[in-house]
Amino acid sequence: MWSFCKVFIVKKLNEIAVLGMGLLGGSITLAVLRSLPKIKAVGFSHRPSTRKKARQLGVATKVVDCLAESLCRADLVILATPVFTFEQIFDEIADSLKPGCIVTDVGSTKLLAHRWAAKALPKNVYYVGSHPIAGSEQRGIEFARDDLFDGADCILTTTKTTNKTAVRTLKDFWSALGCCVKMMSPAKHDKIFADVSHLPHLTAVALVNANDPDELKFAGKGFMDSSRVASGPANIWVDILLTNVGNAAKGIDKVTAELGKLKKAIETGNRKQLEKLLDNARDKRGKLIRDKIRAKEMES
Amino acid sequence: MWSFCKVFIVKKLNEIAVLGMGLLGGSITLAVLRSLPKIKAVGFSHRPSTRKKARQLGVATKVVDCLAESLCRADLVILATPVFTFEQIFDEIADSLKPGCIVTDVGSTKLLAHRWAAKALPKNVYYVGSHPIAGSEQRGIEFARDDLFDGADCILTTTKTTNKTAVRTLKDFWSALGCCVKMMSPAKHDKIFADVSHLPHLTAVALVNANDPDELKFAGKGFMDSSRVASGPANIWVDILLTNVGNAAKGIDKVTAELGKLKKAIETGNRKQLEKLLDNARDKRGKLIRDKIRAKEMES
Repeated sequence: MWSFCKVFIVKKLNEIAVLGMGLLGGSITLAVLRSLPKIKAVGFSHRPSTRKKARQLGVATKVVDCLAESLCRADLVILATPVFTFEQIFDEIADSLKPGCIVTDVGSTKLLAHRWAAKALPKNVYYVGSHPIAGSEQRGIEFARDDLFDGADCILTTTKTTNKTAVRTLKDFWSALGCCVKMMSPAKHDKIFADVSHLPHLTAVALVNANDPDELKFAGKGFMDSSRVASGPANIWVDILLTNVGNAAKGIDKVTAELGKLKKAIETGNRKQLEKLLDNARDKRGKLIRDKIRAKEMES
Repeated sequence: MWSFCKVFIVKKLNEIAVLGMGLLGGSITLAVLRSLPKIKAVGFSHRPSTRKKARQLGVATKVVDCLAESLCRADLVILATPVFTFEQIFDEIADSLKPGCIVTDVGSTKLLAHRWAAKALPKNVYYVGSHPIAGSEQRGIEFARDDLFDGADCILTTTKTTNKTAVRTLKDFWSALGCCVKMMSPAKHDKIFADVSHLPHLTAVALVNANDPDELKFAGKGFMDSSRVASGPANIWVDILLTNVGNAAKGIDKVTAELGKLKKAIETGNRKQLEKLLDNARDKRGKLIRDKIRAKEMES
């Protein structure tokens, strides 16, 4: 599958442009250098210091100083900047894109990205949303890795009007970088990831903020793991949360309701109910781990 | 320090008894076999199947079938069973303890343990609370490890009436097993650990229970880390929470209030406030990591 994708994809794409050279952007160009060396991976960042670092680290075929220069020959343009920058970037790039070019992004929310793309991009370029489930609490090009996408899920989001050939090409592209590609609508995507990704971030932040700094020196491995994602970059997460307001708020309500059930069981000394709540979480997580192991076995 | 403790401790303790042979109990006897081989480590479990496994795995000098047999020569008795069993066990062992014997436990809450010990144990034995901050979401003797306490904090809890010589001996014992020993009152202990340990457990359980099982297949590393502790044994955690009701409930209130602040900032689109809340968590956790690294450097 992997090799097949590579043969297919190098016929479709001669050059790609990655806008934004952070952890994700840098990892995309690095992964292309490793897995698709026949494709030119051009990087752009609006920060001169990032461009300098990207060149020093050799993460791309070429790092250019000018946005238009990155676009003129690109068959695929990937936005790897915070979600709220997309609207402006779509406007800025619209006139410089090659006809037939595919545009995507790696943002963690998709509904607004689809709306902005539909509004700003010309009819002769094709937008598809991408969300590779890869990253870390680290940020910056210095943490970029060529194996960041190995075995990671990548969600492609499409609507009724999305070009099917573009979807096929993009699917092969992410597969060639090592991703397991899944498809869904942007609305379904934003609902699911509010629950499985944005909510853990919010509970981690709440957990850290609720704690007394003097007490935190006694925090053990459990606290550190539970709060790890709270070390993620605030500006990126503000964008994610503010582009998924309704789902994020509903997620908070659900967690708050569950905390309320736990509190009630504890305060009333209802051992049976408390054990039921704890057992339910343990069983659910146990099943999740078993399912994940089974999925990995089926992949290999 | 370590070697000095060992010399000192083998003069004080000829034999220890560990009641309860789960992950913690088994790891204590294994660590004694490794670090204090001159001390006899006797294990007891009320379950025949656990005694059989403990013998097969060779985790203790001796595993006995009878509670009284484990106690008759013990200079130190360690309860490694769920917290709510302590009251009954103190009653059961009171008449069989050697005069001058030290009694401790490895429970995760300490106030009730102190109360029960004061009520049940004779005046000529000495109770001190212990809480080694070690363990995992796994349970059972098969997960016991002789290095579980290497570098772990161990909190000793004492009151005005606690025997100082017993505290000194117990401090040397845990130090010899690799722990960094800290002292505090049981009330302070229960407040701190409600916040840094029980609260992450409760948010992890709430997070898992709030999620739709069908959506969980999209859960990534962030969700798995944030929820890891929810895989811990429910019966142990029920005991912990129901022996620390007031502090656990206050902890839930604090996290709920923080989640409320996040929800308000998201729903009102208050980017500045949301970024402040996220930055605060990130900075606080960053400082925590730096402090932990510094503490480790000072230890070594």
